[in-house]
Amino acid sequence: MHVQFTLQQITQQLGGTVSDGIETLINRVGSLALAQAGAISFFKDTKYTVQLSSSAASAVIIRPEHASLTSLPKIITDNPYAYFAKVSQLLNPTYVAPNGVHSSAVVDASNIIPTGCSIAAKAVIEAYVTLGKNVTIGAGCVIERNSNIGDNTILEANVTIKHGTQIGENCHLFSGCVIGNDGFGYAEEVKNNTKHWVKIPQIGRVIIHNHVHIGANTTIDRGTIDDTVIEEGAKLDNLIQIAHNCRIGAHTVIAGCTGIAGSAIIGKHCKIGGAAMILGHLSIVDHVTISPGSMIMRSINKAGTYTALMPSQAHDDWLKTAANIRHLSPHLDQLTDKIKALEMSLAKLASNNKIQE
Amino acid sequence: MHVQFTLQQITQQLGGTVSDGIETLINRVGSLALAQAGAISFFKDTKYTVQLSSSAASAVIIRPEHASLTSLPKIITDNPYAYFAKVSQLLNPTYVAPNGVHSSAVVDASNIIPTGCSIAAKAVIEAYVTLGKNVTIGAGCVIERNSNIGDNTILEANVTIKHGTQIGENCHLFSGCVIGNDGFGYAEEVKNNTKHWVKIPQIGRVIIHNHVHIGANTTIDRGTIDDTVIEEGAKLDNLIQIAHNCRIGAHTVIAGCTGIAGSAIIGKHCKIGGAAMILGHLSIVDHVTISPGSMIMRSINKAGTYTALMPSQAHDDWLKTAANIRHLSPHLDQLTDKIKALEMSLAKLASNNKIQE
Amino acid sequence: MHVQFTLQQITQQLGGTVSDGIETLINRVGSLALAQAGAISFFKDTKYTVQLSSSAASAVIIRPEHASLTSLPKIITDNPYAYFAKVSQLLNPTYVAPNGVHSSAVVDASNIIPTGCSIAAKAVIEAYVTLGKNVTIGAGCVIERNSNIGDNTILEANVTIKHGTQIGENCHLFSGCVIGNDGFGYAEEVKNNTKHWVKIPQIGRVIIHNHVHIGANTTIDRGTIDDTVIEEGAKLDNLIQIAHNCRIGAHTVIAGCTGIAGSAIIGKHCKIGGAAMILGHLSIVDHVTISPGSMIMRSINKAGTYTALMPSQAHDDWLKTAANIRHLSPHLDQLTDKIKALEMSLAKLASNNKIQE
Repeated sequence: MHVQFTLQQITQQLGGTVSDGIETLINRVGSLALAQAGAISFFKDTKYTVQLSSSAASAVIIRPEHASLTSLPKIITDNPYAYFAKVSQLLNPTYVAPNGVHSSAVVDASNIIPTGCSIAAKAVIEAYVTLGKNVTIGAGCVIERNSNIGDNTILEANVTIKHGTQIGENCHLFSGCVIGNDGFGYAEEVKNNTKHWVKIPQIGRVIIHNHVHIGANTTIDRGTIDDTVIEEGAKLDNLIQIAHNCRIGAHTVIAGCTGIAGSAIIGKHCKIGGAAMILGHLSIVDHVTISPGSMIMRSINKAGTYTALMPSQAHDDWLKTAANIRHLSPHLDQLTDKIKALEMSLAKLASNNKIQE
Repeated sequence: MHVQFTLQQITQQLGGTVSDGIETLINRVGSLALAQAGAISFFKDTKYTVQLSSSAASAVIIRPEHASLTSLPKIITDNPYAYFAKVSQLLNPTYVAPNGVHSSAVVDASNIIPTGCSIAAKAVIEAYVTLGKNVTIGAGCVIERNSNIGDNTILEANVTIKHGTQIGENCHLFSGCVIGNDGFGYAEEVKNNTKHWVKIPQIGRVIIHNHVHIGANTTIDRGTIDDTVIEEGAKLDNLIQIAHNCRIGAHTVIAGCTGIAGSAIIGKHCKIGGAAMILGHLSIVDHVTISPGSMIMRSINKAGTYTALMPSQAHDDWLKTAANIRHLSPHLDQLTDKIKALEMSLAKLASNNKIQE
Repeated sequence: MHVQFTLQQITQQLGGTVSDGIETLINRVGSLALAQAGAISFFKDTKYTVQLSSSAASAVIIRPEHASLTSLPKIITDNPYAYFAKVSQLLNPTYVAPNGVHSSAVVDASNIIPTGCSIAAKAVIEAYVTLGKNVTIGAGCVIERNSNIGDNTILEANVTIKHGTQIGENCHLFSGCVIGNDGFGYAEEVKNNTKHWVKIPQIGRVIIHNHVHIGANTTIDRGTIDDTVIEEGAKLDNLIQIAHNCRIGAHTVIAGCTGIAGSAIIGKHCKIGGAAMILGHLSIVDHVTISPGSMIMRSINKAGTYTALMPSQAHDDWLKTAANIRHLSPHLDQLTDKIKALEMSLAKLASNNKIQE
């Protein structure tokens, strides 16, 4: 019951040109190494030449300059990986949830659900929520009052949208994410001789522009006074924390387990590796890459790649390294002092020799 | 439809003294830089003097010693930031969820829901749960059997409370947090020549004292035998993991993405930065600050600030640093050896010279 | 109303031999230090000899070679900790959820729920889901279409299982975990002179073998084309991210807050510490231990323990260390150059002296 297309039908929809095997039938995608008959694969780098030559794929997507490397039926295009993504979208159309409101969903009477929307079982939609066309709300989602969700946006099961959140069109929010949670803001105060914390109301919102994806169990906090903003086309992976007042630039990608502290401003087209940590009240310009696991403590004003990582070692070697790092300052000072003493002794000795001469 | 107050009305409720503009109307809060007419802002540090002088705020909260820096209407108090928090609370009263039990909630017949409580749509409250006065249970929450929740405590949507959990008064639990989950405890055993893991039942509870806040998607595990305890006034941010048997001291704040391993005892009034990691079976005294992203491997017996961070660098510079760190031990040994050799040669040469003399 | 057993009854069920006090009644477990009358404790290491001698426990589980250290009634066995785990399981039997489908659950008409299963309030089970015998589905869980769940597996409240997921027998999934979420895969493409991201459909599944445990709010992504696999007996803690196409080997344990990037292959019987981070497209052999908080950037081909951690210091000391690390390359180069210069000067001086002689 899989969809299938000829190479010609594919190029008619997605562009590119077919070279050899215009009628080759494709019904699935696969990697060069694991593809089976009926599958189309892609080739983007000559380091995969061996896999290309032995691939069981029925066709391959390839750059013009690499076309001669294989006799397989092929589609020629400048960006084989992006083309592959689109062929896969063609062959694996998004599941369309059933239209209408499930009888077990709770939708406040103030809301009009547009035709084409799907509200799954056990979803809760509070008062004054505006949905665009073809919005999908998964099972168990909670959409709080005064939120807006744009056309074609999909919320997978068990997403929580706090009050007043604005979500654009064609967004995709994955299970367990929490959007618009109160930011972490407290003022310290002494009362009865004990310091305690006074909560600062978080009255800003979360604004999510179009084509944004947000991963499973990721949390995005609402602004303290102004809004937290995720710009167009940004893609966020799972288990990410975006604190209050942050701004994530357009088309920036952030891998899983990353934390971004309050009021950080991240540029456009940045690539932030998994488990990176970015402190608050700083800014990062466009086109910056942060390596995975790296802590960024200061603003970055120049595009480029930045890293902060301890290299891993066998544990016993690391113990020595750690001891050396712990004593690095006195150790380097001591070496420097000894060299200075040697230089002085040597100069004195040389000078004595001179005098003797 | 905003609430509004004169400066005089504010000080009548919150203390402090008005200097100039006793009748100034305030309807919102704002930062010095972004405040508009009608807003009250705060000034706590002379490094914001420029913003103060150009602020469009209608009034400012300020220390006595800074009062002369502005001609704006002002409230004078010793702790402007905490005062600002309270004014914001006054101007932005907490949303009060509708009283009563939503028809789609499932409440076990064994429970009596006190007047003033709000149980939202799709909430599930199992048997023998005790709620205090004015408790709010958000949509989709699950409260398991034998749990207690104190007066005025708020659970936002989609919170999970496991069986037997005790939650104090005036607590605030945010969406997606899981309280009382089984701790991660297994004993290794050989069976049929293969090592495998035997689960240790987690029979302790989670005890949460009054005025505790717990962030979105944070997880707090129940104790193995005894209880995991979060003391009064502690504030936890999002995506934090507190393992079994931990104790978090009163008024300690923990920023997002932090992990605290089993049986760690954290003191009172500590400040733990985001993405910090604290190993298990150790203790940290009161008034300790842990820098963000820092791994703490040993007990800390003295108040102060502790840090463990690789500084970030442009990637190419870091590559050199990483290579040097990896070879730090042999490198330092080699330098030390060479210096020793030089010292010996020099001593010998000097001694020869002495003899020649 | 606690269960209670004599030592003899315990050994009849679990093996081992009783030495002294065969009729001693046991109704709970406890640590040596905190156990009360009626409790059984365990002793596995002579560093706890003091606690053993003062313990109020009614009996102790102990190795043959340690039996003479105490006069308490005892059970003698080679692995006291694993034995203790099993005694605790005996004394604290797993809560059995009520049989049957709660009236508020939504179960698609295509599904047959076997006898012995428990489907709690507000659970949602979509079409073509196959459940084994004695499966427990907690309140608020969502099980999407075409998933299978094996005999005796337990899903705690608010778990999300995405479509097509395969879960084995005797598994235990904790609240808030999300299994089978789309992996984070995008191809970059230029359109209208702007780079943007094209989503790669994630069409693989998550396959979970028998006896696997998955912690609260942990996320496991489905494969891009092939499957993500968690092998038999693996135990995962809370807030872990397993990216698409990973394979986690049998009986491997992973502590909380760990992230494993796409296509990483982790061996069997590995122990991965909390907040460790493992990059993608690498492999780790069996029996590897990764220290907590350590970032692994390359494949590991040899069993052993691996670490990558900055040691923590008082903040002022760390500031000096950080400055030294940041300038480690030029600093070491400079020391090396100076030593070389000294060696040359010294050689020259010595040679001059020779000539003079």
